[in-house]
Amino acid sequence: MILEAVTTKIFSMSPTERLAQLFSEFPGIGRRQARRFVYFLLSKDKVFIKNITNALLAVQEEVLQCEQCYRFYAKDKSSSPHCPICMDEHTDHSLMLVIEKDVDFENIKKADVHAGRYFILGGSIPILEQDPSKKIRARELVAEVSRATKEDGLKEVIIALSANIEGENTTQYVKKILEPLSEKSGLIVSTLGRGLSTGTELEYSDSTTLEHALKNRS
Amino acid sequence: MILEAVTTKIFSMSPTERLAQLFSEFPGIGRRQARRFVYFLLSKDKVFIKNITNALLAVQEEVLQCEQCYRFYAKDKSSSPHCPICMDEHTDHSLMLVIEKDVDFENIKKADVHAGRYFILGGSIPILEQDPSKKIRARELVAEVSRATKEDGLKEVIIALSANIEGENTTQYVKKILEPLSEKSGLIVSTLGRGLSTGTELEYSDSTTLEHALKNRS
Amino acid sequence: MILEAVTTKIFSMSPTERLAQLFSEFPGIGRRQARRFVYFLLSKDKVFIKNITNALLAVQEEVLQCEQCYRFYAKDKSSSPHCPICMDEHTDHSLMLVIEKDVDFENIKKADVHAGRYFILGGSIPILEQDPSKKIRARELVAEVSRATKEDGLKEVIIALSANIEGENTTQYVKKILEPLSEKSGLIVSTLGRGLSTGTELEYSDSTTLEHALKNRS
Amino acid sequence: MILEAVTTKIFSMSPTERLAQLFSEFPGIGRRQARRFVYFLLSKDKVFIKNITNALLAVQEEVLQCEQCYRFYAKDKSSSPHCPICMDEHTDHSLMLVIEKDVDFENIKKADVHAGRYFILGGSIPILEQDPSKKIRARELVAEVSRATKEDGLKEVIIALSANIEGENTTQYVKKILEPLSEKSGLIVSTLGRGLSTGTELEYSDSTTLEHALKNRS
Repeated sequence: MILEAVTTKIFSMSPTERLAQLFSEFPGIGRRQARRFVYFLLSKDKVFIKNITNALLAVQEEVLQCEQCYRFYAKDKSSSPHCPICMDEHTDHSLMLVIEKDVDFENIKKADVHAGRYFILGGSIPILEQDPSKKIRARELVAEVSRATKEDGLKEVIIALSANIEGENTTQYVKKILEPLSEKSGLIVSTLGRGLSTGTELEYSDSTTLEHALKNRS
Repeated sequence: MILEAVTTKIFSMSPTERLAQLFSEFPGIGRRQARRFVYFLLSKDKVFIKNITNALLAVQEEVLQCEQCYRFYAKDKSSSPHCPICMDEHTDHSLMLVIEKDVDFENIKKADVHAGRYFILGGSIPILEQDPSKKIRARELVAEVSRATKEDGLKEVIIALSANIEGENTTQYVKKILEPLSEKSGLIVSTLGRGLSTGTELEYSDSTTLEHALKNRS
Repeated sequence: MILEAVTTKIFSMSPTERLAQLFSEFPGIGRRQARRFVYFLLSKDKVFIKNITNALLAVQEEVLQCEQCYRFYAKDKSSSPHCPICMDEHTDHSLMLVIEKDVDFENIKKADVHAGRYFILGGSIPILEQDPSKKIRARELVAEVSRATKEDGLKEVIIALSANIEGENTTQYVKKILEPLSEKSGLIVSTLGRGLSTGTELEYSDSTTLEHALKNRS
Repeated sequence: MILEAVTTKIFSMSPTERLAQLFSEFPGIGRRQARRFVYFLLSKDKVFIKNITNALLAVQEEVLQCEQCYRFYAKDKSSSPHCPICMDEHTDHSLMLVIEKDVDFENIKKADVHAGRYFILGGSIPILEQDPSKKIRARELVAEVSRATKEDGLKEVIIALSANIEGENTTQYVKKILEPLSEKSGLIVSTLGRGLSTGTELEYSDSTTLEHALKNRS
């Protein structure tokens, strides 16, 4: 089996090679930077490495994934299987933002522009994908939207995905799977407004952006 | 005088240095690339240089600036002081797009998203500018909007400037100088819609873009 | 104390923030990528995190620093306090390459261009540094060169540092502290040859490089 | 014929399109920047365009190409067919630097590291080129080296080409065509020294550079 082969290979490596190999799997990290990480750690004292291993174990033990929105969140005394936002009565439960990943959530949270719930799709659907439902939490989204419509007064789902080809392909798919719920219960399904984003220069704008910017003028 | 000093300096230069000096004034061209241009021209035959000097003279003689919208356009038999777009009865004369410069016009024209008139401001206003009216065709814009409202049935002015600090500063100023006309004649003054532009990723969006994208959702 | 303050701050953070904070200290990693690392780890299974913590502990326990050349190397059965290169009788012990850091060693090793010993300075000396001996293993270098001259037949030290201002400043300092040994024992102290490096284009070369390239012509 | 077609196409263009078309043939200039050049010129007064056309004509009329070294140089009273460097008795006529192009000459001149003559090859030879003698002034070089050896006391030819694949391929070819002269008259043919160029960091050096830097150590 491939996994065994890889595992064997990893354990015949030297400790530094093994650690570098693992770091090189981190997003955006090549072999060279992975090795630099290892030498960086060798140059730090034992306390730093202790702090990292502790933090790794803590993340593994104390971080839960919300059973409603699939966000990761820190476990607290309540031992609720739902994250603070899903549980908070001050959350606007009539509005759900469907996003791709946790870092998108962090960026939107920091911008402080959405008072409602979230749902993390956990991925996006490439063009020509044969089995789109495998790439995102499709079944989970339909179930949660259905539940929230009935139980929490959900009125509108805003699909908030990136304005690129893969994002738009995913948006089309999400719209399609939410259509039955929309027809049955009057749920509104919307998408983010298009137009000039901060920094856009007229001279370099593509025609789609210009078209939306003109249509959405105010 | 400074100009004389520069002129004297230019004429004491060798022909290649003099030409390189002039090319280095072109937008985005440094001294090194200016010299590369000169050697490129030296490597071309006489016909190429003849073509360039002819084209330069033709541009100077055959290109006019429209007295209404301030676009540059090629002189034709009609010898009208107005460009084909301002003269065309198929143009939607109720709608005027106010833009910064001719390349913006070209980009919007290529996108084929606006059927109305144009007005070229000819610049933008930096933050803290003491004398904003000197930086753009302020007086000319007010005069042309006033004229077009009366004579051509102009109903709406769309300020179409870049979504950066200088563009927004210019937009505020243009709004202010058009306010009296707007109040008097009911002219609508609008700005381009903000939101996600093509390629924008949620993870990297700033809060202003996210805010507008949510507000303009549909 | 500052350290206490930082420690307290770290432990009042959530587990994900704490881990992100530690990753953001890694070389070249900003806050955003540090968070991406955390979410990447959350998305991996327990085995991956187990592998990382194991590899971190292994690196800490099984990697030693050579008492002669200060390279990091994997502990083996011999339990020698010296690395395999320093111990190997096939190493050319008459030649020592003085380099800044372990990744430089790896790059030179991969190139397979040096058959001798190494010495890792562990840093470089910025221009105008008040206390240069604190920035690199100055005392250790003098001691090791002195020892190797007597015991191992060392004949030449090649200072192999980067061809930038800080590298050249460090080279001057290393030359100076080795001068007494050089005078006493006839030890040769040399530096890497300057000239065109792979990819250098004549058009963009600086005068120092051109000067050396002409002088070292062959 | 293609040329006629292109010419016809050019003359059916508007003056601005025609000038933009010509600018887009300049090295490193795309269609967008070519248009920006045209609008830049439209925004300048008549004097600027006059200055450019004059400078273009002056370059064409007053710049000559040296019949010995093929450099471009400004015509002077002497009306010599040879450039000032070839004519200057202070030039070290025993040494000739063979370079690719005029901008390389300018860079070397500025660095003030060579007191001898030059020869401009006028190009370089791509790998796998079928007819290398067409890509550079091969015949002219052999003739000029032969002449200068006899008449001007030329003793050494330094091939000074870029340290990349095409440069090295060209160097090999130039060496080969100069071999007969070298054997017959004892002419030395050398190449620039390889090693660390300014800014090179050890961590990122390739093996060829490291090998030369070690070999040329001093």
